[in-house]
Amino acid sequence: MEKYSLQLSELENRIENLRTHMRAGELDAVWISHHVNMYYFSGTAQSGHLFIPADSGYPTLLVRKYFPRAQKESPWPDVRWVKSLKQVFKFISDEKFTRIGLEMDILPAANFLRIQRAVPNVEFLDISREIRQMRAVKSEYEIACIKRAAQLLDDVFSQIPSWIQPGMTELALAARIEYFMRCAGHQGYIPMHSFNSALFYGNVLCGTSGAIRGQFDGPTCGPGLSAAIPGGAGRNVIQPNQPIFIDMVSGVDGYLADATRVFCLGELPEDLQAAHTCCIDIQNRIIAQCNGKITGAALYEQALEIAAENGYAGNFMGPEDDQVKFIAHGLGLEIDEPPLIAGRYEYPLPEGSVIALEPKMVFSGKGAVGIENTWFFDRSGWHRMLSTPDSIILI
Amino acid sequence: MEKYSLQLSELENRIENLRTHMRAGELDAVWISHHVNMYYFSGTAQSGHLFIPADSGYPTLLVRKYFPRAQKESPWPDVRWVKSLKQVFKFISDEKFTRIGLEMDILPAANFLRIQRAVPNVEFLDISREIRQMRAVKSEYEIACIKRAAQLLDDVFSQIPSWIQPGMTELALAARIEYFMRCAGHQGYIPMHSFNSALFYGNVLCGTSGAIRGQFDGPTCGPGLSAAIPGGAGRNVIQPNQPIFIDMVSGVDGYLADATRVFCLGELPEDLQAAHTCCIDIQNRIIAQCNGKITGAALYEQALEIAAENGYAGNFMGPEDDQVKFIAHGLGLEIDEPPLIAGRYEYPLPEGSVIALEPKMVFSGKGAVGIENTWFFDRSGWHRMLSTPDSIILI
Repeated sequence: MEKYSLQLSELENRIENLRTHMRAGELDAVWISHHVNMYYFSGTAQSGHLFIPADSGYPTLLVRKYFPRAQKESPWPDVRWVKSLKQVFKFISDEKFTRIGLEMDILPAANFLRIQRAVPNVEFLDISREIRQMRAVKSEYEIACIKRAAQLLDDVFSQIPSWIQPGMTELALAARIEYFMRCAGHQGYIPMHSFNSALFYGNVLCGTSGAIRGQFDGPTCGPGLSAAIPGGAGRNVIQPNQPIFIDMVSGVDGYLADATRVFCLGELPEDLQAAHTCCIDIQNRIIAQCNGKITGAALYEQALEIAAENGYAGNFMGPEDDQVKFIAHGLGLEIDEPPLIAGRYEYPLPEGSVIALEPKMVFSGKGAVGIENTWFFDRSGWHRMLSTPDSIILI
Repeated sequence: MEKYSLQLSELENRIENLRTHMRAGELDAVWISHHVNMYYFSGTAQSGHLFIPADSGYPTLLVRKYFPRAQKESPWPDVRWVKSLKQVFKFISDEKFTRIGLEMDILPAANFLRIQRAVPNVEFLDISREIRQMRAVKSEYEIACIKRAAQLLDDVFSQIPSWIQPGMTELALAARIEYFMRCAGHQGYIPMHSFNSALFYGNVLCGTSGAIRGQFDGPTCGPGLSAAIPGGAGRNVIQPNQPIFIDMVSGVDGYLADATRVFCLGELPEDLQAAHTCCIDIQNRIIAQCNGKITGAALYEQALEIAAENGYAGNFMGPEDDQVKFIAHGLGLEIDEPPLIAGRYEYPLPEGSVIALEPKMVFSGKGAVGIENTWFFDRSGWHRMLSTPDSIILI
């Protein structure tokens, strides 16, 4: 299919994989409507409804808007134009589907209740967990996409030292970084799956901003510019001998990479340097342990132990009253995917995992240090996707 | 409250207004969890659960993350730290709430089903429509916030002519515009309410890109950089005598403004100039008609008629096979709020309305022209919030 870089065989593998779960749940079909899953299973993110039948055969893509674009973008042969949900309900009835999997983790309750009322004889089951677990295992094609996003982060990290000036606000530095990334082909919008969650590029946090806590489910949050959008860069001024903590997410052709580096004008105080070194040590020891058998929860416990042994129990992944319960998250089309290295994540990380591993330390009134790299795991082990060194970048 | 520019009295008015709807629906309480409504009713967008009781008295804000920030940001006196949903369910039981309004248009189905199972004796009703209608009427405080966002758009439009060069890609121009806006205090993330919808700054579309259709529910969509994030600027190159269509959304302190201007290197062909003039005429005639009594649907029909009389029936708000069914949307904390000037919107636009009125024409193979301004309506009539002239800006 010349028209499209995402091959039909890639999509066929994805639906075959989903069918394993459909058979286990005795489903007749899965109904996809979220734009990210739509893109994953069809190659288009146009608005509509993708029905993947449990038996063999191609899915049917019912497109609301915009049909000619969806038809061009999706390699699936059965793409139809629908004008209303009524046509979707008629399709379900014509196909005699009686047990359908839905993306209940993201479909609004009002939509779900409307669907239930419209086709009362159909039983709906939540398939979102299975889809997320599937998406946690990346193909070679996906890993190649993520590598391009990681390259963009290497490129921006190499430029940042030339932009940092004393007296500059963290907002001005964030804007400069975002400008470079956008010119380099960053896609803009970063999909995030969890309810109530959003991310705009990332965090550029100077000094004390690195310790400002918030609703964001990560080791740092930052002030943001107002209480309405309360995260990311604020108006703190860059000063010498303070950590300039830069956590950025790039997106290229839908796929994301995520990395953090700490920069400093002059030398960082020794206590923060030591904490940063400990984060690198945790990163390296966790990656060395992570072998496809040990669970995410066991790795997380190891990380906590190393941090505590070094005296950072009250700084690791946040200050004492607000520590996030993970050190790594999966990423791909969304920034918050499985697998996790986290408390209660009682699964090993499978081959094909792509994770952002981010051991970080937060010091109230001083800021944040630590490291984050995007990694992928194949039969030969874990591979770094960025080449920028992990050490503090002195300017 | 010196700590916060959003006054307690503003929030008190909002909950009193909501209580009117609660009494009509015989609700005991409304349970807010979406970050935008949370900010609207509490002054903080931290993660948690706001319970507004139907009887008199202050709401209770149960904060999951991050409590000290929520306590500082919200003027409400009763802010509590919760660690789990169990505590939320216990609160409901302690308060003896039996009929609760929920934001069912945005709360995921899985969350709703979990809540239903946890407190089976409580009846949940959808309060989202009432909240959206309430939010359609802005206070003086909100209009002042939106004015600052509109000023940011005037500022960027005044700079754009100095940035446009022949041979530049629309992506490079978009990046330059975004950079300026971000430096000027644009908040970054733009909340959009509808399921499956997202917006990154806006659209910078040169020539044929203006006619590229997509899933976005607007008169233009644009190519974007890939099928995964299929909207906004692509890699089209700016050439003389083509429309450079720039539709941007700014956000300051949570509040948004939205405007479009058309730029051109040299002269635009006469047919596109004439279409642009017709859009300005539609804007002015619709604003003159919009008096707090005529419905949005009637105004929309008038706009269709003017477009058709001038020979643009197949271009107005999209090409024939893909015309959006509105010419104006409300905006405030989100970009897609009521009121609408739209087919089937059988309500007048009340005092306090803030709308983006955007009559636009799309020409396949040529691009898009038209106008968009943010307006507010008070007892003295409609007021423009931007001062940039509506005419095509020639470079």
